[in-house]
Formats: sequence, structure tokens, C-alpha cells
Amino acid sequence: MATKNFTVALNEAIDKNSSLLCVGLDPDMRYLEGKDIYSFCKEIIEATIDLVSAYKLNLAFYEYHGSKGYEMVEKIVEFIDGRVPVIGDAKRNDIGNSSSFYAKGVFETFGFDAMVVNPYLGKDSLDPFFEYSDKGIFVLCKTSNPGGGEFQNLNVILDDKIMPLYQVVALKAQSWNENQNIGLVVGATYPEELENIREICPDLPILMPGIGAQGGNLELSVQASLDGNGRGVIVNASRGVLYSSQGSDFADAARKSANDLRLKIESSRRNL
Amino acid sequence: MATKNFTVALNEAIDKNSSLLCVGLDPDMRYLEGKDIYSFCKEIIEATIDLVSAYKLNLAFYEYHGSKGYEMVEKIVEFIDGRVPVIGDAKRNDIGNSSSFYAKGVFETFGFDAMVVNPYLGKDSLDPFFEYSDKGIFVLCKTSNPGGGEFQNLNVILDDKIMPLYQVVALKAQSWNENQNIGLVVGATYPEELENIREICPDLPILMPGIGAQGGNLELSVQASLDGNGRGVIVNASRGVLYSSQGSDFADAARKSANDLRLKIESSRRNL
Repeated sequence: MATKNFTVALNEAIDKNSSLLCVGLDPDMRYLEGKDIYSFCKEIIEATIDLVSAYKLNLAFYEYHGSKGYEMVEKIVEFIDGRVPVIGDAKRNDIGNSSSFYAKGVFETFGFDAMVVNPYLGKDSLDPFFEYSDKGIFVLCKTSNPGGGEFQNLNVILDDKIMPLYQVVALKAQSWNENQNIGLVVGATYPEELENIREICPDLPILMPGIGAQGGNLELSVQASLDGNGRGVIVNASRGVLYSSQGSDFADAARKSANDLRLKIESSRRNL
Repeated sequence: MATKNFTVALNEAIDKNSSLLCVGLDPDMRYLEGKDIYSFCKEIIEATIDLVSAYKLNLAFYEYHGSKGYEMVEKIVEFIDGRVPVIGDAKRNDIGNSSSFYAKGVFETFGFDAMVVNPYLGKDSLDPFFEYSDKGIFVLCKTSNPGGGEFQNLNVILDDKIMPLYQVVALKAQSWNENQNIGLVVGATYPEELENIREICPDLPILMPGIGAQGGNLELSVQASLDGNGRGVIVNASRGVLYSSQGSDFADAARKSANDLRLKIESSRRNL
């Protein structure tokens, strides 16, 4: 994947697998029943790779295991080996000099095709990521958690207009997108906000967590976020796919859940 | 350090070493002249441990090296072994479930005494950190980078008042501080904002980056941020200490720079 443009690779996977599903490889030891992380993720990948547009690794679940967890990250990215794009979800953000180390780390050392970043420090803190024009950078905009609005929905005065902070982030992201490599994270738990954001940013790809365990409305959210080409959004599911069964049939069960979800998304996509 | 309260340990180190200096162990290979990260940091620590109130590891510089970098983090925290508090600077933030994995990871697996977090996702995303009542949690408030104001200085309407976003973060942090374990990150590059923040949060410890390479005014910033007990702020310096010499005398040179800086801070502290 290292030499392929993220957006191109993502659209290829979307079309090839007829899928807007992104499976979140977020191994939670409480549900692994003694299986080791790497074998678990490997089996999940083998069982789902023709059903997804991308995988996403939330690094929290690996950092929990320290450096050994990060070793798993390296092995998993290597195992996927560019067959579909892999998104690192680490919500990184730092001042420019430090950020350039993060960008090199996640894109070159770990080999992620895309990364989730946090906008709080402003554009100069994200430029080291944006400079990787072949990589995807998903900026947190409206997150799926219950308290996401505490800051993101604060009313901000910008150029004599009043708008919630998340809309300012969307506007800025749109204006930052010189390398055509920026996307947004918008939770499925807020379909109205999704619509606003899609209006502000007609073309930015949206990474959408928040369905399943978090309770977002799938159909509404998918339909509110599709772009003019019927793509432009990938729906992340983690717990709802990974832990469909905790028995020895976990990979088959994950495949079934992933496919059910893929088809549900496809039906929302076609029923527009 | 695992059983010691962070604030108590920090104040002990401040008093014992007459120091508000926090040395940032941020190894940049471009200046290490072939020295390996662990030996480099070990020598810097040995040369400065009686001059500092804390160490801070910005994980960007380790993530750059992948899992091997995180192994260095583990070894460095172990080497410091609770002699002074160690702050992890990773600006972590995620939705609650993921955040609880980060919190366990940084406090239990890596053994940090404190962590820097990003507030963009709101309180519920930080609660898993705040629940560690013996650990310190530094919330990004006003960062030191040139573009830090892009979002942080946006005017926000809150309860019929208009104030910049960073002040809302300061207000919220103050109200979240039930476990008396919250601090703020405020860059030395914005002394006026420091004053406003100290007014809003008279007692929250401030972690202050931005002097040295970033050009912040040391005396003004220290004086603006001291609390009623003449503590309440630690000044982070990384490049200005670590790379004072790139020759074989690097540790001695780092000690001299660290001590010069410590004395400058002490003089700002006494000259109030």
C-alpha cells in the first residue's frame, strides 16, 4: 500500500467489495477468551477481507499492552499487506516539530495508509500529516461519544457568523485540503450534524463510528453522508463484528455479522 | 512512584531540588550522533535528576521508532524508578471505552505518574484518566505552537458570556477537578493568556512548554503562573537542555544548561 494513494485505494476496495464497511480491529482481552491478539486479528481479517473497504486499528487497545501491543500493530499491518487500506486511529496531535515525528511514525514506521488526528492545536500542528499527500488524514469533527458536544457544539463567533465549533472544524478542514487527502470523523450518533457537515464539505470522505454498541442510526447516517458518487463514507464497526461469538466459531460469526452489516449499508446506499 | 500521589510527589521534588524545571526527554536522532536512545536518556537523567521537578517524555519521539521506541519508553520510566515523577506527553483522547484502555496503558502498563490529554472530545472522554486519583492529568488548554490560537482563541458564547475557547477549557477543567488531580498545559509563548488562565484556575498546576527553541518569555510566564505557594507551574525544556553539546560531553553540557535554566526560573520565582 505504501506507494498507492489512499483515496484511490479506498475507492478501489469500496467498489471491488461493494462495501462501505470498515472493521475496527480493537481487541478487547475481556472477550478474547484466551486467544492472543495477533492470531485473533489475523483470523478476523482472513474471514472479512473480501467484505470491507478498510480496517481501522484503534491504538488504545494496543497501547494497553505497552510496547508488545505496538509490536502487534506492526504485525497486523504487515499481515494485511496492502490488500485493503489500513487506518490508524490514534487521534494524534502535537506542535509541529513533535507532530512530524508522529507523522513519520504512523505512516512510515507503522505503515498506516491513513490516520485519525485531533484538530485542537490548529493547522500547523497537522501540516506534517497533510504533507503526506498519498496518505489519508481524518480530522475529528463531531465525535460519537455522549459528551462529544461539550466543546464541539459550543457556539463560536466566526467572521460575524455564529456556528458550532464542529462546523468551524469542517469549514477549516475543507479549506486545508490542498492535497486532497483530508477526511472527517463524524459519529453516526448525530445524523443531523452529519447532514450539516456534508453540506459544508460535499466531497470530504467521512469516517463514521458510532453504530452498533454506540447506538447510531445506520440508514439515516449513511444516507446523510454519501457523496455525489455514492461513496464518501465508511462505516466503522468493531465490537458488533469482532465479538459476535466468543466461541471457536468467532471468525465465522464475525464474517456473518460483517456481511449482514455490509448488506444493510448497501441497502441504505441504494435506497436513496 | 506507583503508590505515591502525583501532586505530593511533584511538590516534594520541587522543594527538594529547588526546581520548577521539567526536562523533556525527547530524543531526536538528528542530534544524537549515533548514540542509542536509551543510553542517551539514561545519561541525561543521571546528569540532571537532582535539578528537576519532573521528566516528561513526548511519545512522538518514540513512536517514530515503532514498537522498539515504546520499549525504550518502558525502560526509561523503569530507570527513573520513581525518583522524580514522570509525565507522559501523548495528548491522548478518545471515546470513553477506548479512553479507559489508554488510561490503563499509560498509568499501569507504562507506569507514568501523569499524562497530557486533549479535551476536544469532552469530559466523558477524559473521565477514565481522571478516575486515577493518584495520577496527574494535564489538559491541553493554550498550546505553545504559532497556530495554537486557530481554534483555542475562537470566541465562544457560553452562558451569555463571550470568551475564547481556551478559557472555556480552563473553566471546565476547574469544575472537573473533583479528584484534585487535574492540571493544564499552557504555552510560555502566550504570557497574557497564562495570566487569564491563572485567574480562572488559581490552584491548577500548569505544565508550561514553549521556552527556548519556541521563544517564550521565561520570567513573565513563570511569574504569571505561580500559585499562592510559589509552586503550581513546571517549565518544560527539551531541546535547550538535551542538545547543549553533541560531543561526548553532552551529559555535562545538559547538566549545565539544566542548572542555568533552573536558576533562572528560581530567580523569576523569588523576584515576584
